[in-house]
Amino acid sequence: MPSSNAAVFVPLSGDRFRVVYRIRGSEAEARAIARDVCFEQTVEFPSDLVPPGDLREQIVGHVEHLDRLDATHCRAVISFAVETTGFELTQLLNVVFGNYSMKPGVRVESLDLPDSLARGLVGPRFGRTGLRRRLDVPRRPLLCTALKPMGLPPDRLAHLAYQLALGGIDVVKDDHGLANQPFSPFNERVQRCADAVAQANRETGMRCVYAPNVTAPGETTLRNARFARDAGAGAILISPGLAGLGVMSQIAADNRVDLPILSHPAFLGSFVTSPDQGIAPGALFGQIARLAGSDGSIYPNYGGRFSFSREDCRAIANATAAPLAGLAPVFPVPGGGMTVERVPELLEFYGSEVILLIGGGLHQHGPDLIETCRAFRRLVERC
Amino acid sequence: MPSSNAAVFVPLSGDRFRVVYRIRGSEAEARAIARDVCFEQTVEFPSDLVPPGDLREQIVGHVEHLDRLDATHCRAVISFAVETTGFELTQLLNVVFGNYSMKPGVRVESLDLPDSLARGLVGPRFGRTGLRRRLDVPRRPLLCTALKPMGLPPDRLAHLAYQLALGGIDVVKDDHGLANQPFSPFNERVQRCADAVAQANRETGMRCVYAPNVTAPGETTLRNARFARDAGAGAILISPGLAGLGVMSQIAADNRVDLPILSHPAFLGSFVTSPDQGIAPGALFGQIARLAGSDGSIYPNYGGRFSFSREDCRAIANATAAPLAGLAPVFPVPGGGMTVERVPELLEFYGSEVILLIGGGLHQHGPDLIETCRAFRRLVERC
Repeated sequence: MPSSNAAVFVPLSGDRFRVVYRIRGSEAEARAIARDVCFEQTVEFPSDLVPPGDLREQIVGHVEHLDRLDATHCRAVISFAVETTGFELTQLLNVVFGNYSMKPGVRVESLDLPDSLARGLVGPRFGRTGLRRRLDVPRRPLLCTALKPMGLPPDRLAHLAYQLALGGIDVVKDDHGLANQPFSPFNERVQRCADAVAQANRETGMRCVYAPNVTAPGETTLRNARFARDAGAGAILISPGLAGLGVMSQIAADNRVDLPILSHPAFLGSFVTSPDQGIAPGALFGQIARLAGSDGSIYPNYGGRFSFSREDCRAIANATAAPLAGLAPVFPVPGGGMTVERVPELLEFYGSEVILLIGGGLHQHGPDLIETCRAFRRLVERC
Repeated sequence: MPSSNAAVFVPLSGDRFRVVYRIRGSEAEARAIARDVCFEQTVEFPSDLVPPGDLREQIVGHVEHLDRLDATHCRAVISFAVETTGFELTQLLNVVFGNYSMKPGVRVESLDLPDSLARGLVGPRFGRTGLRRRLDVPRRPLLCTALKPMGLPPDRLAHLAYQLALGGIDVVKDDHGLANQPFSPFNERVQRCADAVAQANRETGMRCVYAPNVTAPGETTLRNARFARDAGAGAILISPGLAGLGVMSQIAADNRVDLPILSHPAFLGSFVTSPDQGIAPGALFGQIARLAGSDGSIYPNYGGRFSFSREDCRAIANATAAPLAGLAPVFPVPGGGMTVERVPELLEFYGSEVILLIGGGLHQHGPDLIETCRAFRRLVERC
């Protein structure tokens, strides 16, 4: 370590972003942990080896505020210089939670990002307004379902897509497990399903879009997304936990793709399964998905087959629209074990700025899938 | 759901891979959960809607084995058709743990992958043998340290790199928080540090390599890696939790990069902070990092400032070398609060097939950094 580091670096702007952490422990313990976060997430150096000066004052995080949440937890607000992020999504997330993801007892609750950070963050390309315009649905809640199950060949999936589009679904997405398997190769499936949805649209005059799953290793994701665009898909599905959050943001910025993105939570669950570590659902599926370019963030709804609470879902829905580095609001997309019967309750909970995702549940109403979709749509239009 | 799906798809090979899950609950509960995993991770359809036939028999997972681990946990071995992965890393991980990452009570313990899966998995480009050849160190443990702290300008970091290389370190890596910040732009830092290490090598006759952190959003990671190669870096550092596991594997396969990869655990910690969810450390930092192209997998060592146990570290080290889809063995790289004093103990624990990473700890031995490195090296050579 250099013995003197006064003025060793270019002057910083003074702009800072803030992270709210929930910390398990007494106030004294939480204060010590908060201080450790400031060092671990930046200089990653023993604090006694960081002498007074620019590094200590400007690069190391600042504990702005600390208060008690309940008998066993505190809340700390820590600020960091915007320059520590290099104005890149990956390094922003690294400062927020890179090493501390490995230390139990600390959870990221929310991010407070100034507009100056937007410079390096792509964010959603369409947002709520852009997606509504593309679907020609100015006001009502949007309807989404998934093509499944894995194992069906492309012509069978395309026939399903045709029926779902005929029934009035707005967004027919691939199940997130449809990839490039030999029983349903990506290119063939995407072309057939896009064609089937286009055919249905010609018959109905509606504007259903097909959203194929483009998730794949590295640049194959981008190649898939461009193929989807050329094949006539009207949106795409990405699992950023598998493809990479930075890859999703790159695709959101890609002018040759230029499609709305639905993000899927696959492989991200470990961040949200404990209240004492990880990232709060609102921060992950509301804020971070939006930062990474999602126009509609899928997450497991309360009361389905996953374990999210009503409060978690409220926090996610709020975070999709609250101010965030100047980015556009996006849609919450609750799913995971939803049924048509629950539509009135869901709309009461979410209001109209929501995409309702009912997957397998659409198939539980008997053999007439088109009629089930129409019933789903009528319920939404009536509420 | 199609009412009949007999023989709807291309015949499968019959090859299957196996996943060991640790499930919280009684034997009856665990059996029900294991059965749910088989459906949720594949067809993602209510099981009563999947009729007998190919889909149910071949696409849905099979519970191969289930036994009790302790009073509150069972172990289930579940197999899946290799074709469900599409022979891609991202979809393999999706089948293993995509949706189930969101359900507490189930942890991935280990993967058992047949050689047939290697077709689509890149794996490590160098492995232990290739990295040793590149460093000209046939047998002894390897020495690694990190350039830090964030905030120093490129010339100061380059001077540190020069001293560390002079002192006999084998791999001088960037701290994982060095990205493309205004106080240390990526291109300038990488060029200066690579030059400084080359200069030291000319003086010592040794073959130290500099491993810059290339982690960035999307294809910028690949661009950074190619720049690093052209600048003379001898290896690279990637945080796959930030860049994406698939992006790392793409870079491992890139002929224009052709550099050994050290992987860093930043942002992956939430997978390993609970024994009742996520992915066991051996599976994540041993097996999955190796599948995704890491030649040396960094993880928090036991007894440092993180919370890994000796058993976790043993499992990781074992997994870096055990048979895995025909891939080469790679190095375990324990780090995180290590000190020179602990070298004898670490070598007794790990043996010689290890890269010892001491970061900030090298700076705690007084102002003569070169002499501290030499002491570190003497200790390793003596043990």
